[in-house]
Amino acid sequence: MKILILGGDGYLGWPTAMYLSNRGYEVLIVDDYSRKKIANDTNSQALIEGENMYERCEIFHHYYGKRINFKEQDLKDFDQFEIIFKDFMPDTVVHYAEQPSAPLSMMNFDMASYTLNNNLNVTFNLIWSVIKNKKKCHIVKLGTMGEYGTPDIDIEEGWLEINHKNRSDKFLFPRQASSLYHTTKILDTDLLWFYVRSNKLIVTDLMQGPVYGILTSESIKSTKLFPNFHYDSIFGTVINRFLVQAIINHPLTVYGGGTQIRGYLNINDTLKCIELAIKNPPKPGVLDIKNQITETFSVNEIAEIVKNAANEEGLDSTIKKIENPRFEKEKHYYNPTYSSFKKLGLKSSKFDKDFCRNFIRSLLPFKKNIDTTKIIPEIKW
Amino acid sequence: MKILILGGDGYLGWPTAMYLSNRGYEVLIVDDYSRKKIANDTNSQALIEGENMYERCEIFHHYYGKRINFKEQDLKDFDQFEIIFKDFMPDTVVHYAEQPSAPLSMMNFDMASYTLNNNLNVTFNLIWSVIKNKKKCHIVKLGTMGEYGTPDIDIEEGWLEINHKNRSDKFLFPRQASSLYHTTKILDTDLLWFYVRSNKLIVTDLMQGPVYGILTSESIKSTKLFPNFHYDSIFGTVINRFLVQAIINHPLTVYGGGTQIRGYLNINDTLKCIELAIKNPPKPGVLDIKNQITETFSVNEIAEIVKNAANEEGLDSTIKKIENPRFEKEKHYYNPTYSSFKKLGLKSSKFDKDFCRNFIRSLLPFKKNIDTTKIIPEIKW
Repeated sequence: MKILILGGDGYLGWPTAMYLSNRGYEVLIVDDYSRKKIANDTNSQALIEGENMYERCEIFHHYYGKRINFKEQDLKDFDQFEIIFKDFMPDTVVHYAEQPSAPLSMMNFDMASYTLNNNLNVTFNLIWSVIKNKKKCHIVKLGTMGEYGTPDIDIEEGWLEINHKNRSDKFLFPRQASSLYHTTKILDTDLLWFYVRSNKLIVTDLMQGPVYGILTSESIKSTKLFPNFHYDSIFGTVINRFLVQAIINHPLTVYGGGTQIRGYLNINDTLKCIELAIKNPPKPGVLDIKNQITETFSVNEIAEIVKNAANEEGLDSTIKKIENPRFEKEKHYYNPTYSSFKKLGLKSSKFDKDFCRNFIRSLLPFKKNIDTTKIIPEIKW
Repeated sequence: MKILILGGDGYLGWPTAMYLSNRGYEVLIVDDYSRKKIANDTNSQALIEGENMYERCEIFHHYYGKRINFKEQDLKDFDQFEIIFKDFMPDTVVHYAEQPSAPLSMMNFDMASYTLNNNLNVTFNLIWSVIKNKKKCHIVKLGTMGEYGTPDIDIEEGWLEINHKNRSDKFLFPRQASSLYHTTKILDTDLLWFYVRSNKLIVTDLMQGPVYGILTSESIKSTKLFPNFHYDSIFGTVINRFLVQAIINHPLTVYGGGTQIRGYLNINDTLKCIELAIKNPPKPGVLDIKNQITETFSVNEIAEIVKNAANEEGLDSTIKKIENPRFEKEKHYYNPTYSSFKKLGLKSSKFDKDFCRNFIRSLLPFKKNIDTTKIIPEIKW
């Protein structure tokens, strides 16, 4: 089975490529290294940044004996996109190729415009490559739980039956995000749903929460197979950032009151979810939306778990609340449904003190490279 | 009061400019003539196409003694957009500058990509011009009733209080369109709502139905002031197309069963709505959505009215059902609310036989230019 991975240099793209290749899928990665370039331009370099993709594919081959192929290409260029698509003719495309930083999307006009145009056009070009060349190709698209925002009603998996004035109909679950990045994912969903209906496409749209962790069933063999790992205020997500802060005895910086609740998942569970999605495509014309999280926590709860783990590892960890740089509700209702992957057999791992202690140990070799100036958020919105 | 009209060469842009200028507003039009260029490229030339904007502004000045200014500019270019915005510093921007043809947006990849990128980026550049230069500027954006599609529940004005599992919250009314063009308007609404919330912008989003007519309080003085008028299968809308068909004794071509119901309004009512919207801006941070229609009809009802009017004018009009080229439900529930403009004092006109008879007479001088090859739809989706 042939899998095309768009954005395969990313934190999740590369581990996904290894996971699938190691399980017998034929994998082709496309990436334009734009995340790395932006990180360099904004002093947001990753703590761990892999070799270039060709070398990483060689290292993977050395350990696992499997070939992952790579093409460097900006996927905003439809003609080039289509050439790659037609040449490989994938059975499934896993689409991670989006500018993933909420702060970056709120930085200024140029970054906002880049985020909008990159994210929308890569999705659009993917849709059209499939329409023109292989309508049976399954699109597995990474969305975000952030599309739903924090509504005052229970969050369902993608869809909602609405009763209004004694009539009812089924609609996309209402979406209302708190950054332009998250809003571009809403636009992606709108676009996908339109073309799924009108062209009977086969699309799975995964509403994923922030992912944490670095050791996967494949990366564990060598630090050279680690995914790129960010802790900075632009590309870093909360759990990964807290763990880096703990290692250098920097206070864990909670944004605002810390009562913001979100759904999270371990990187290994992401990989399992992606394979489950690939193995369970919807019928043509049905947009299958799954909520890809395994637990919910408030920021304060995460900070406590990390702090306790750090202290047991002999580190002197503290928590510090700083002004919230983000436009988001801090006190809010949050009750998302996430049973789809459980029904497909997902056995998920827990975020707890033991996981954090192990994670801290695997990060220690990189401690000397941690730059505290990258931690405090400078982009406010 | 300074009004910037984006897309001022269009069927509605130009009459709006005249209407507002004639009522004492200072009006600047921007347009890149893209509709005209696309019409030429696709053999969809208008039956009535005005002089270039500079000359039309002169003709208007001749009749009304008022100055409308014009700049030719592609508004996808943010730097040029911002120069115009900063130079004029409008109090209100009326935004019509979108590729408005549903069939064109479904024609092929190039036209779909153009529609997506033009429509989204002009809206985006407008939002950012306002954010960077004058947050108090009121944006009056033309959306479409087509954003709602044809849901099986009553359509409210933009928003819906949703009750779910004993809790409730207010959301954008669910949107689900039947062409890429209409979908780009959904994306516009998503973008506007995000930036309204996060930047306390002042935005009115008008969900407009198809507009009919050509004689406005200003255009009535001279055919040289008429808006461009399309009857072709790409830019023509149903009522205008039926009237042209009636004049040349071409059967009125009903798509499919003709039971599709939509909301419509007279071009003069559009102009009144725009001025009411300008005079009644919402509070900062509130996205004010109004449904801009005055009556609903099925396609069959419209065809009957036009046929009867044509027959009374001595024309031999018939109705012919042809295969529906569109992806749309033909039998559907349709009960939209549209009370906002009535509450603001709108007195609307009726679409009836007398209106059609008058319209037919005003179109007769153009009869010799009607090209029947442009009438039958060639783009199917």
